[in-house]
Amino acid sequence: MRLLLFLFFFIGTAALAEDSILGFDSAGSQAQQALEVEFDSHLDADDMDAWLRELSSAPHHVGSTRGLEVVEFVAAKFRSWGYDTEIAEYEVLFPSPRIRELELVYPSRFTASLTEDSLAEDPSTSNIDDLLPPYNAFSIDGDVEGELVFVNYGTPDDYEILDRYGISVDGKIVIARYGGSWRGIKPKLAGEKGAIGTIIYSDPEDDGYGAGDTYPQGPFKHESAVQRGSVMDMPTYPGDVLTPFVGATADAERLAIADATTITRIPVLPISYRDALPLLEAMGGEVVPAQWRGGLPITYHLGPGPARVRMKLEFNWDMVTAYNVIATMAGSEYPDEWVIRGNHHDGWNHGAADPISGLVALMSEARALGELAAAGKGPRRTVIYAAWDSEEQGLIGSTEWVEHHAAELDQHAVAYINTDGNSRGFVNIGGSHVLEKMANEVMRAVVDPQTGVSVAARRRARLEVNGDQAVRAELKNRSDMRISPLGSGSDYTPFLQHLGIASLNIGFGGESSGGSYHTLYDTYEHYSKYRDPGMSYGVALAKVAGRVTMRLAYASRLPFEFTALADNISLYIDQIEELADNMREETLETNARIESGVYNLALDPTRTLGPPTPKPEVPYFNFAPLKNALAELESEASSYASWVQGGAAATAQENNLLYTSERELTRDDGLPGRPWFTHHIYAPGFYTGYGVKTIPGVREAIEQRQYELVAAEIEVAADVIRAMAARVRQLAAESRLHDK
Amino acid sequence: MRLLLFLFFFIGTAALAEDSILGFDSAGSQAQQALEVEFDSHLDADDMDAWLRELSSAPHHVGSTRGLEVVEFVAAKFRSWGYDTEIAEYEVLFPSPRIRELELVYPSRFTASLTEDSLAEDPSTSNIDDLLPPYNAFSIDGDVEGELVFVNYGTPDDYEILDRYGISVDGKIVIARYGGSWRGIKPKLAGEKGAIGTIIYSDPEDDGYGAGDTYPQGPFKHESAVQRGSVMDMPTYPGDVLTPFVGATADAERLAIADATTITRIPVLPISYRDALPLLEAMGGEVVPAQWRGGLPITYHLGPGPARVRMKLEFNWDMVTAYNVIATMAGSEYPDEWVIRGNHHDGWNHGAADPISGLVALMSEARALGELAAAGKGPRRTVIYAAWDSEEQGLIGSTEWVEHHAAELDQHAVAYINTDGNSRGFVNIGGSHVLEKMANEVMRAVVDPQTGVSVAARRRARLEVNGDQAVRAELKNRSDMRISPLGSGSDYTPFLQHLGIASLNIGFGGESSGGSYHTLYDTYEHYSKYRDPGMSYGVALAKVAGRVTMRLAYASRLPFEFTALADNISLYIDQIEELADNMREETLETNARIESGVYNLALDPTRTLGPPTPKPEVPYFNFAPLKNALAELESEASSYASWVQGGAAATAQENNLLYTSERELTRDDGLPGRPWFTHHIYAPGFYTGYGVKTIPGVREAIEQRQYELVAAEIEVAADVIRAMAARVRQLAAESRLHDK
Repeated sequence: MRLLLFLFFFIGTAALAEDSILGFDSAGSQAQQALEVEFDSHLDADDMDAWLRELSSAPHHVGSTRGLEVVEFVAAKFRSWGYDTEIAEYEVLFPSPRIRELELVYPSRFTASLTEDSLAEDPSTSNIDDLLPPYNAFSIDGDVEGELVFVNYGTPDDYEILDRYGISVDGKIVIARYGGSWRGIKPKLAGEKGAIGTIIYSDPEDDGYGAGDTYPQGPFKHESAVQRGSVMDMPTYPGDVLTPFVGATADAERLAIADATTITRIPVLPISYRDALPLLEAMGGEVVPAQWRGGLPITYHLGPGPARVRMKLEFNWDMVTAYNVIATMAGSEYPDEWVIRGNHHDGWNHGAADPISGLVALMSEARALGELAAAGKGPRRTVIYAAWDSEEQGLIGSTEWVEHHAAELDQHAVAYINTDGNSRGFVNIGGSHVLEKMANEVMRAVVDPQTGVSVAARRRARLEVNGDQAVRAELKNRSDMRISPLGSGSDYTPFLQHLGIASLNIGFGGESSGGSYHTLYDTYEHYSKYRDPGMSYGVALAKVAGRVTMRLAYASRLPFEFTALADNISLYIDQIEELADNMREETLETNARIESGVYNLALDPTRTLGPPTPKPEVPYFNFAPLKNALAELESEASSYASWVQGGAAATAQENNLLYTSERELTRDDGLPGRPWFTHHIYAPGFYTGYGVKTIPGVREAIEQRQYELVAAEIEVAADVIRAMAARVRQLAAESRLHDK
Repeated sequence: MRLLLFLFFFIGTAALAEDSILGFDSAGSQAQQALEVEFDSHLDADDMDAWLRELSSAPHHVGSTRGLEVVEFVAAKFRSWGYDTEIAEYEVLFPSPRIRELELVYPSRFTASLTEDSLAEDPSTSNIDDLLPPYNAFSIDGDVEGELVFVNYGTPDDYEILDRYGISVDGKIVIARYGGSWRGIKPKLAGEKGAIGTIIYSDPEDDGYGAGDTYPQGPFKHESAVQRGSVMDMPTYPGDVLTPFVGATADAERLAIADATTITRIPVLPISYRDALPLLEAMGGEVVPAQWRGGLPITYHLGPGPARVRMKLEFNWDMVTAYNVIATMAGSEYPDEWVIRGNHHDGWNHGAADPISGLVALMSEARALGELAAAGKGPRRTVIYAAWDSEEQGLIGSTEWVEHHAAELDQHAVAYINTDGNSRGFVNIGGSHVLEKMANEVMRAVVDPQTGVSVAARRRARLEVNGDQAVRAELKNRSDMRISPLGSGSDYTPFLQHLGIASLNIGFGGESSGGSYHTLYDTYEHYSKYRDPGMSYGVALAKVAGRVTMRLAYASRLPFEFTALADNISLYIDQIEELADNMREETLETNARIESGVYNLALDPTRTLGPPTPKPEVPYFNFAPLKNALAELESEASSYASWVQGGAAATAQENNLLYTSERELTRDDGLPGRPWFTHHIYAPGFYTGYGVKTIPGVREAIEQRQYELVAAEIEVAADVIRAMAARVRQLAAESRLHDK
């Protein structure tokens, strides 16, 4: 207690009520905050714990019997809390394994078990009747045999190193470790480079014994554990592979499977480190670079070979029904303005952490909001709670629903608030920067269960201690913390990046790392022991996501704000200029060194590592259009911000202009080579997968050295920024008109 | 061939003859370089290989029968080449193991083997009759039992981390990995902190299977291999522990063993990773920080315990005779000016790499010089070749000889040129910066055996490719490469740091890393397969060290130069200022964060890691005296350099002023707390061991936060720099006088 008093004194109190919050006038701010306290009183950790235990008691993937039971359980709850609840069904392609074989055939024989051990200490791990065995969804079928090449994480940088060793993966089977990029990038790049198969394993250094005690002694990866996961080419388009752009209703037009470009070109299989050890141990060739070493007790070699493996994969390419639970509470004043709050319900296995820990927070919020509504304090806008199916295979349930309802959503959707797995630690909010100010107000309003300060103060403390110099310097000069831009990896993607609906993704974490992700060991037992004992961070998540949802649903003037957007875009433009400058300098310098021959002198002539290959020099780009557009946005945003200070109510027209503003950042023809992604400020990286690329058209053209695209992409990006500036000008005009 | 032509074209030719070299006039330069070519013609890789095989055929440590045979073999060779050869004997304390026991006593039982495996693939490893088993020389006797604490490398930084975890080593036995600091620092610090014993093991990540294929499949550490080594507190004083400051002649006054401060306070034992695994696996407590993880297939824990070990060590505290071979060829013109060239002959075991690979280069040089002398082209100054005994136990042979002959050396010693283990790769020269220019000329004169360019060009290429931004930028603006300042770790220490004799240490390496150092596996078989097949780098070393020795021995004006010294001192002053600034800023910032309580918020409350402890703030120091002294030196150095351009011969008086100039950098009362170390520009770090500290009095006072010492140390350092400036002024005056 002494410690906490001390902290309150020095940190500043975690004063949780503010005089004024964005979107409300002074009286409204007080009322809203009182309502939120009432909301909190309906949140119940025991409920969440009971639901978590129930919903993660057995495997419940899309198409499974248990999956439908989960849907019905959740739908029944929503109905019981007063929601108009429907189950939206889509018919989607779902490959599940029929044959999985992996064998070392030379220089010795070893057959991979491809099976996870059931553990006496965790009864759930024996409840595996409906278990999907380890596999990567949307791997193509294949029966291949070839020499192994170790490709580290299998990123573009890793292939540059292999090139320097003179190693081609053409005709080989690559073995890559999980991490360093989203898993789907590994077979994508390997396939582009001519490999005939990809094995992905979890190195014990990353989330096994190297990281900490392994399950069940600790939370880290059991030697038999395998991370499942989709390898669908989501950076091209997510969702059902047969129905891009349209909802996968029963009568939708469908591609032939052979024409679905998001299925991998080559077969891919995930394995445990126990299965990987004999394969890696049998490899020869050069010793890997120091940074490529993993935690197995062997010397890692690049190959190729002499180890040869045979891998045979066949899948059931079934059509199954994906069930989204859609629970609606109509708004009392603005029923046509929809605040959407979602979390998926399907798991790869038991899915305690992923996704049930997030889902139970959402359910708890929905119940609390139902209680408020029952007491006559329901939302002014319509709130839609969604529990998505088949997120794991590629954001399928959410994407199909969004594609199916695109026109209505374009018109009605105010914002989309996403959660997914949750655990003990620090709050993390990512998403549209028009919501950054509101997100910060919410983070300041919720108390961290372990320390008693606000979750904002705790997050700030972590940044102060762990952040680099630049981050720490910025913290001193910026009262709000930046929220992170979103790439992909959960159900916000179709909302944000396909339709331009302002979105946030919210979760806690960072103090419960482990190795259960997408394995058999993501169970209630694991979760409740290691991830969030007592569900206190489940409650904290419900408080944060609940406040965000409610402020959007109750505000007089929607809590969108544009100076933070301008500030973040400014940062991204600076980053891209710096990227180009650094690439230019590095390219020049490296090319000069290659040309001068110093590499040949510096490198060991008895080894095969050679100099890098010269790269095309980086021209200077005209960033002026971006900067001019930004200047316009900055000016409009700042004048609008001063205008609306004090929180006068907005007209319906103003609110419409506010919530549809994010649409200005999209363009119908999308990003180069991937028209499904229409947002020109945020996208998942084409070669990083989940990792975000901001101002992606420009950034990726530079990164991929497609210099001829840069000018046009700068124009498009400048155009969306100017359009946003125009929108804010229009808002200010509307606001002045209305005030007069 | 095509490649090499290409390289010559772009790198600039490795033009090996220069118009003018330091210390010689134009004609003299040509003659000297011609003489060096002739010298080269007498170097013979086959000789070196045969001597290597012979001298490393069996263990030959100090006090062993084989050790004396090695001495006699080497002495006979010198005599046969025309050298006046004596064997200088010293009676020194030499502890060898009588009892070594290490046992895990809880929670299970395991007895460490403490034995290295003989390998069928390497017959030398079965020739172990006279083998010293794995131990650390100058560990105290002890019989201790206690819980284990894992201390990573056991450096001061590591103990700061342990403090944050609330872990004290008081009454515990620490287990540390080799690396991160010189081994002797580990028991020294552990003892200061109250530990009762130290175990040092070689982690496989560092030089075992993590680094590459293990012996005999590759050069890295066999699972049973143990790095022996001295743990004498050499940063206090090296050499015989009973006779600091004086030669350990038979009649020298000796301390009682109990009064020898350089013996450890607590028992210490080195072990293999095979023996370490069960100990580390039995440990509990917090998981180690990520950077502390090693390469064993376990989760590393900090302890303390529950693992308990018992360690019992008893040594034979014998007096043995150390034999230095001293082979003298009198100079034809200046017999009283001595150029000393040394390498030790004793090994921990077979010692193929360490030290025989260096010794055979020295022998080859001596033979070649003998041939020149026989042809009437002998040196103008006296050249002394020395083969030192008992280097491994603490630079004992060289230190005793230097202490014994201190007065003569002070008067006669021109320079000391050291070598030790040598292997394939890049030339590395460290030492007195007054010799930097000459060292660079020599590096430009010797051809790299693998690439055909000069060893300077190859080293420069490596720096261009691997160096950081600062190093690369400097390369563009500096025609000479910096030579590294010397800390400790080989026989130059008594010459340079006790007497102020300008010294260089020369070796090749960097392309033959491995794990044989100080183990049973440092054999001819290992060396000739992995370290320098064909001895081409043995020849290259003889060419470099031979040229350095000859230029010193034949020069008209000794090749000492002072602008490089000034330039390096300038760098060191900048570094120290930056060190103080960084420490000041970091201390302020960390203290502020501690005080504000952010650590308590940022850290996981369920774990034991706490905030750092506040540290005393760093005041501003007055560096002006150093800078004023430096300015004086810079000015004098530059005017002397332009004066002597063209290489006019020097008078005997000038040459004496040149070669005794390094003495100006010493002060009789030495460094704080360690008077044996009299040099105020270079010293081994008190808490790093081998690692150098430049301007050590000032630097260490700041690093160790003994702020009250800084001003006085700045005065001393400024004083030695001013003294050097005065010396250079005197030289210039003498030179002008002579020229007029």
